[in-house]
Amino acid sequence: MLNSRHILLVLGLLLVIEGVFMILSGGISWLYGEFDLPYHFISAAICMGFGGIIASVNWNAPKAIGKRDGYLIVTLVWVVFSLFGLLPFWLSGAIPSFTDAFFETMSGFTTTGSSILNDIEALPHGLLFWRSLIQWFGGMGIIVLSLAILPLLGVGGMQMFVAEVPGPVPDKLHPRITQTAKRLYGIYVMFTFAEAILLYLGGMTPFDAICHSFTTMATGGYSTKQASMAYFSSPYLQYVVVLFMFIAGANFTLSYSALHGRFKKVIKDEEFRYYLGFVLVISVMVGGVLYCTDSSLGAEHAWRDGIFQVVSIITTTGYATADYLLWVPFLSIIIFLCMFLGGSAGSTGGGIKIVRIVLLMKNSLFELKRLVHPNAVIPVRYNTRAVGQGIVINILAFIVFYMMIVGVSMVIMSIMGFDLNTALGAVATSIGNIGPGLGDVGPALNFYQVPGFGKWFLSFLMLIGRLELFTVILLFSPYFWKG
Amino acid sequence: MLNSRHILLVLGLLLVIEGVFMILSGGISWLYGEFDLPYHFISAAICMGFGGIIASVNWNAPKAIGKRDGYLIVTLVWVVFSLFGLLPFWLSGAIPSFTDAFFETMSGFTTTGSSILNDIEALPHGLLFWRSLIQWFGGMGIIVLSLAILPLLGVGGMQMFVAEVPGPVPDKLHPRITQTAKRLYGIYVMFTFAEAILLYLGGMTPFDAICHSFTTMATGGYSTKQASMAYFSSPYLQYVVVLFMFIAGANFTLSYSALHGRFKKVIKDEEFRYYLGFVLVISVMVGGVLYCTDSSLGAEHAWRDGIFQVVSIITTTGYATADYLLWVPFLSIIIFLCMFLGGSAGSTGGGIKIVRIVLLMKNSLFELKRLVHPNAVIPVRYNTRAVGQGIVINILAFIVFYMMIVGVSMVIMSIMGFDLNTALGAVATSIGNIGPGLGDVGPALNFYQVPGFGKWFLSFLMLIGRLELFTVILLFSPYFWKG
Repeated sequence: MLNSRHILLVLGLLLVIEGVFMILSGGISWLYGEFDLPYHFISAAICMGFGGIIASVNWNAPKAIGKRDGYLIVTLVWVVFSLFGLLPFWLSGAIPSFTDAFFETMSGFTTTGSSILNDIEALPHGLLFWRSLIQWFGGMGIIVLSLAILPLLGVGGMQMFVAEVPGPVPDKLHPRITQTAKRLYGIYVMFTFAEAILLYLGGMTPFDAICHSFTTMATGGYSTKQASMAYFSSPYLQYVVVLFMFIAGANFTLSYSALHGRFKKVIKDEEFRYYLGFVLVISVMVGGVLYCTDSSLGAEHAWRDGIFQVVSIITTTGYATADYLLWVPFLSIIIFLCMFLGGSAGSTGGGIKIVRIVLLMKNSLFELKRLVHPNAVIPVRYNTRAVGQGIVINILAFIVFYMMIVGVSMVIMSIMGFDLNTALGAVATSIGNIGPGLGDVGPALNFYQVPGFGKWFLSFLMLIGRLELFTVILLFSPYFWKG
Repeated sequence: MLNSRHILLVLGLLLVIEGVFMILSGGISWLYGEFDLPYHFISAAICMGFGGIIASVNWNAPKAIGKRDGYLIVTLVWVVFSLFGLLPFWLSGAIPSFTDAFFETMSGFTTTGSSILNDIEALPHGLLFWRSLIQWFGGMGIIVLSLAILPLLGVGGMQMFVAEVPGPVPDKLHPRITQTAKRLYGIYVMFTFAEAILLYLGGMTPFDAICHSFTTMATGGYSTKQASMAYFSSPYLQYVVVLFMFIAGANFTLSYSALHGRFKKVIKDEEFRYYLGFVLVISVMVGGVLYCTDSSLGAEHAWRDGIFQVVSIITTTGYATADYLLWVPFLSIIIFLCMFLGGSAGSTGGGIKIVRIVLLMKNSLFELKRLVHPNAVIPVRYNTRAVGQGIVINILAFIVFYMMIVGVSMVIMSIMGFDLNTALGAVATSIGNIGPGLGDVGPALNFYQVPGFGKWFLSFLMLIGRLELFTVILLFSPYFWKG
């Protein structure tokens, strides 16, 4: 039996938190004295009123929840947060279409960063701030935040944590889940603050600096400028963003170790080494070819364009300083393939994730060994420990779902008339929570022209991708509703 | 230690067999009295002379061979057969470039069917026959044929059989491998004969009927006409070809059962049911959409174009009666995705194979069940039997290699300037042994304009695909050469 009253209680409480954040963006609007001021507070009132009523009605719900409740709560929270989070955009008329507003909000919470806006600078500051804030919120996770600030949720919190932060190899910072959540948010806030300072020192306004540090650390990619990070042509600013995208795409547990001086642990971590390796090798390759094929770029600029785009796509941030679709096919295909890597486990990055790719590659290589020595037991090793067959089979299930969803979704997008390039790009960037795609949804364009149905469908893909497939897919399986 | 003398003996003997087949095509040339007559016999002499010398020098080689010898022999045989098989094309000047001749021959033996020829009808009959014959030869397998006709190879034959016909779920017709090979070739010859008769009755010349039945049963796809099967506009002929492509893409063990009246075994076979299901559902979908979107086609014609292209791609044959790249994106994307299915295990079809796809899909679905019931042991079942984790992990390794090879190969093709569509299409069609691709290598075009390096590289992909990855990849791994 699902504990539906506790589920409603959690939803209600979280809506109140969302309302509090809306008041924050209302404050920004008040600072700038712009037209959107009332809409932040109306939205906050709706959130808090609705959430407050649901929460108080179910205040005495039994606290114990099981695995299934966890999966259901997390999926519901993300949908409900997007439905309420769109209110400031929609009520203010900044995004008049409900569908567009939902797409923009889900794309925000899931840190995808795909946008339907044709003129981002036209938005008032309060809404731009809200747009960045929801990415920051979604980056580390809505449930993780609530676990950090609502001790009430500690009971059964582990079920929700696992559903929101799946990851194939669990890696907790503290045996108590609320402590883990607090530490994760602590590092997250610290890095966000550090980046904002550095961006401000490089010449960004405080507003732009804060918004961009929100969306960098979330690997979200929403910018306050239509031209994305290309607007900020200063190499210093771009390198700062590259650095923090890289940090955001690394495991926060490792950052915690690094901040406590345990650098050896970082350097010895296998996923981190592959992550660093992929980023460096691919950046050098892209930068080099860019330098050779585009005579208008100096060496530094070519290298910077290369590493920026590579880190932006691998970490699934999605900022752009160049349009990779204008590069030679060799480079645009490399960028396309990077969409299937993703950040590290325990990072704010989306996608398949480096650890899964590494374990899959190792398993394939070891299979060759098994063919030569059919009687030997040859387990895959990760961080020197043997990985159980169950985990390998779980990753197999993940990757097959991923590819199947990409395939079927391409077909669905093609019904709306998109060609192979655009359909594949839109699907890969949505499920990977990246942002820009290929063809008609490339980095220089946006998702405005996608038909309504397509926007809802891609929003759904973003949600599936953000919760790493199983949490959402499970709800559509008979196994979930039978047991 | 590899038994290199026995490896050479086998190679030598097989070259003699290849020479015998060249004499056969020489006979066709003699019948038509065309200019290529001497080149068949010169080629045959080279094959048989070279093969005879190697074989006689190593006649007394110790017979026992191990797993590693098996993998090495099989890979070498396919390379050597292509190197010698190109002689009639090259010596006669019909294909003046050595690279082109190699590509055409490897594409033939691996039953890929991609061609560099711009005017197929210009070839003399003897060469057209040879071109069809090498597909027929490669379809059931060079080693399988040799096991059937050379009892000498019976010792260690199992090692070679497994390397040439891997398949995740072994399914032998007879405990003795030579008997299995004989039965397989028996059915193969029978079906080829039956198709040729039916095509002849439908109005094809005996020559065209035989050549097309060779390349249908091999799921090869070489036609004697530049326009492929579109040249033969008779619905009867096209439906006959559809039927035999379907049979060729089904497990020959099942055909054996059917021919012995055991239809229940066929209908109960899980892979066959999925194979039939995929073909029917996708054909109906494609035919229906084709009818709705192309007003120039009648219902029967739309259905026929649909089922022909779908069966041709799923079975990896590669004949065309229509250019699917001119269809609406929805349909061309479906055809593209069909390139990743492939025929049944134990068929002459290439690709990933239905059984792997089915086991992967099942494993993913069962993983959902495992998430809800984490302590239950839930194995994947296939044909009512539980499939061991080892087999699932082997398929995982296969699919990951497949995807990695596709990804890396796309990058390599893009170095030659091909765009994403063309690069992806060329790679998918080569490793899947299909024939036509996307973009510049679509069904209405050919591979002539691919640069030399690209032709060698795609030939290599065809070989990897035909031997189902592991056999060839293993030779490039340190594990193979250490042990």
